[in-house]
Amino acid sequence: MWFAEDLWVGREFDLGTISLGADEIIEFARRWDPLPMHTDLDAAADGPLGGLCASGSQVLAVYVRLASDAIVSRTATLGGRGVRDLRFHRPVRPGMPLTGRTIISGHEPARPGATLVLLAGELRGDQDDRVLSLTGEILMAQRQAGEVSARTPTGAR
Amino acid sequence: MWFAEDLWVGREFDLGTISLGADEIIEFARRWDPLPMHTDLDAAADGPLGGLCASGSQVLAVYVRLASDAIVSRTATLGGRGVRDLRFHRPVRPGMPLTGRTIISGHEPARPGATLVLLAGELRGDQDDRVLSLTGEILMAQRQAGEVSARTPTGAR
Repeated sequence: MWFAEDLWVGREFDLGTISLGADEIIEFARRWDPLPMHTDLDAAADGPLGGLCASGSQVLAVYVRLASDAIVSRTATLGGRGVRDLRFHRPVRPGMPLTGRTIISGHEPARPGATLVLLAGELRGDQDDRVLSLTGEILMAQRQAGEVSARTPTGAR
Repeated sequence: MWFAEDLWVGREFDLGTISLGADEIIEFARRWDPLPMHTDLDAAADGPLGGLCASGSQVLAVYVRLASDAIVSRTATLGGRGVRDLRFHRPVRPGMPLTGRTIISGHEPARPGATLVLLAGELRGDQDDRVLSLTGEILMAQRQAGEVSARTPTGAR
């Protein structure tokens, strides 16, 4: 279990890769963002983005899934508080590999026993270009005296 | 069809209401944010938020769905560009009614023929308290000469 101190500023994480099939893009958008550019291959081809692309909500969800698996699920999280400056740099097309990366970019005081940890994240696409960037805020418990951090070498105090 | 000029600064929209059942919260989170606080009623009850709550990605998706239906689907949108300062003010519980509201908060120059329209939005919960707030950025076509806006009274030029 990682605590706030284990997510030190500058620590980096490779998050792995997810791609979205056309069916997944359409299914998600029918429920959450039913615009033709996200739900209809033919209409999207004639639309302003020149083809089907994923809803921004789904692109964010891809990043959150990768960060959840690689980082947040291992931590003493007390919940997400927000996202600063979420950017959609270019359309996400069916089958495009989306590769995530996060660097811990800041710690801010929150309340006794907890720290607001800032996670600067991105998704890169098939040409290694950024498709999403953001800074997430997660409230994280601080390590209590006597608990051993995942960072602490064996035998160290 | 609404163009950038039809979304004038200060224009307000009521977006309607969505609530999420526990099943929908769990199904979404299993795919996109599989933390126990979002996927497991018993584990969530013992967790830091004291019960099951929706993933932040899903709370954003609820707002986007409401705004898509009430505003964006009626516009000459060229795509979403980002979100400034997305805030999760409190946990979203199963069955909580989430009522959306948007006010157009700014216009910024983008490229010839298009404007970046800023939409300040929020979701309020069952005690009329804010659960989500954000400022969305949508690139929007400007009205072309000769096209009649939805805002233009009949017979006016």
